[in-house]
Amino acid sequence: MSKLVIVGTVAFDAIETPFGKTDKILGGASTFIGLAASNFNVDSSVVSIVGGDFPQEYLDLLSDRNIDVSGVEIIKDGKTFFWSGKYHNDMNSRDTLVTELNVLEHFNPIVPENYRDAEVVMLGNLHPSVQMSVLNQMNKEPKLVVLDTMNFWMDCALNELHETIKHVDVITINDEEARQLTGEYSLVVAARKIHEMGPKYVVIKKGEHGALLFHNDNVFYAPALPLEEVFDPTGAGDTFAGGFSGYLAKTNDFSFENMKNAVIYGSTLASFCVEKFGTERMINLKSGEVQKRLKQFQQLTQFDIELS
Amino acid sequence: MSKLVIVGTVAFDAIETPFGKTDKILGGASTFIGLAASNFNVDSSVVSIVGGDFPQEYLDLLSDRNIDVSGVEIIKDGKTFFWSGKYHNDMNSRDTLVTELNVLEHFNPIVPENYRDAEVVMLGNLHPSVQMSVLNQMNKEPKLVVLDTMNFWMDCALNELHETIKHVDVITINDEEARQLTGEYSLVVAARKIHEMGPKYVVIKKGEHGALLFHNDNVFYAPALPLEEVFDPTGAGDTFAGGFSGYLAKTNDFSFENMKNAVIYGSTLASFCVEKFGTERMINLKSGEVQKRLKQFQQLTQFDIELS
Repeated sequence: MSKLVIVGTVAFDAIETPFGKTDKILGGASTFIGLAASNFNVDSSVVSIVGGDFPQEYLDLLSDRNIDVSGVEIIKDGKTFFWSGKYHNDMNSRDTLVTELNVLEHFNPIVPENYRDAEVVMLGNLHPSVQMSVLNQMNKEPKLVVLDTMNFWMDCALNELHETIKHVDVITINDEEARQLTGEYSLVVAARKIHEMGPKYVVIKKGEHGALLFHNDNVFYAPALPLEEVFDPTGAGDTFAGGFSGYLAKTNDFSFENMKNAVIYGSTLASFCVEKFGTERMINLKSGEVQKRLKQFQQLTQFDIELS
Repeated sequence: MSKLVIVGTVAFDAIETPFGKTDKILGGASTFIGLAASNFNVDSSVVSIVGGDFPQEYLDLLSDRNIDVSGVEIIKDGKTFFWSGKYHNDMNSRDTLVTELNVLEHFNPIVPENYRDAEVVMLGNLHPSVQMSVLNQMNKEPKLVVLDTMNFWMDCALNELHETIKHVDVITINDEEARQLTGEYSLVVAARKIHEMGPKYVVIKKGEHGALLFHNDNVFYAPALPLEEVFDPTGAGDTFAGGFSGYLAKTNDFSFENMKNAVIYGSTLASFCVEKFGTERMINLKSGEVQKRLKQFQQLTQFDIELS
């Protein structure tokens, strides 16, 4: 088993979907990543920042799952990052209503000393220079660096993003972002161009249409589980990344074949995440439920054709 | 092996894509279906109609592949159905430039006597009453009736469509059409509502995102092979239907498990169809190429997770 360092936001979210709305609830990329990865009982550490308004019980909730939170800086007189969004009826698009960076504005992540030798580093969605600063703190080259990012950084920090992704092994990105980053419509061509930017492995997330894993000429396609309803997509991409990196940290096998399994675990956990608001479903997730849904994924995708 | 009756258009198409444009070339739903099904060497018959302007060599091209064309009526002083369309840059949408129904306007399909006992009937996209008239001519209840349709008939012949689909075992339909037919956004819910309309099996085609097969609570998801470029999507859906029904006719096994394989064969053949204009790729397709691509589909989708 490898140690896993996770960097990303810990936040308050307020969410509105066609099914209802929430007050400020627990959110943030590294929260979702950490909760997903905790399903594999890996030794993980969340590196983040919150304000004095952040409840201790939320930190305890992570600690209780064996997630080290000593790298979560608490700015007593600051306010926690707050995001509010409203999803459209098709759940595939959303409007951001509020973004209050608050303490995130001056986030200078410090990786705890005893995690600077972690084998796996999961760089959650953040400014690419902040992601890079985490990599620079590692005192041993990690075996696997996974980076998640989004279009926002392509719009406002493209050079920094290009610099950071030179240093990562895997990038997870959605289909529209892959197209924006490369100027290519075909995801096959886009993945090849992203390979050339650095990452040996490219994961393209397609929401309800699943996820693609590219490595040189190899491709793997994991569908999303068809769901009766998506209640709240918030955190699904982070949960995918957490399941992906957590499984790889647990198995300590960074081959393409094992990454296929990591993609399936990521998709499986993400399929739970969207069933309730925020982190609610992930917090109450039982290991038996995960196993049962993995079986559904097998039935969903496996077939038996004899080739001549 | 079962006999296969195919009803659908035989047509001239003129196609414009970002990669180029064609003059009038061979097209039509039953042409693509027949060509795809011919990969399984089934005893098939195309039931259709053409004008005196339709070249004998095109009919020979079907006959050469062991497709019976005695059910293709030739109206000597009529003109063949003509469709012209232009695809947008993303290839996911198109504008119809010309639709000349010509002989299709009075199409009264006659199933050849020696195919009225066929075990499998593939109803290609046509007016639902025309599809129904083919079913009424069968003198033995087919073991499997597959129907393909599109939004056009939902707009202008919804009652007839509802009547016809009561009598089919499998419907193939795209995602937007499934939503239109049921008023449901969730494809899981839409499939359930379509089940209630008659078909025990529902195939929802999602283009570049693959295809879903529903049967009661069972779901199977076949991705589309990620392609560098889609040259011309014309006929891909029909090719899928032809591969699907042709494989089932060949294997004579209409179980859900075998339908998974049929979906994979349909997707595999469709992945070739889009590589060139019109029928060009399908006409020159070699069996070794199909086997090779099936292997790609296996690598694309199969994984090996041990469940506890």
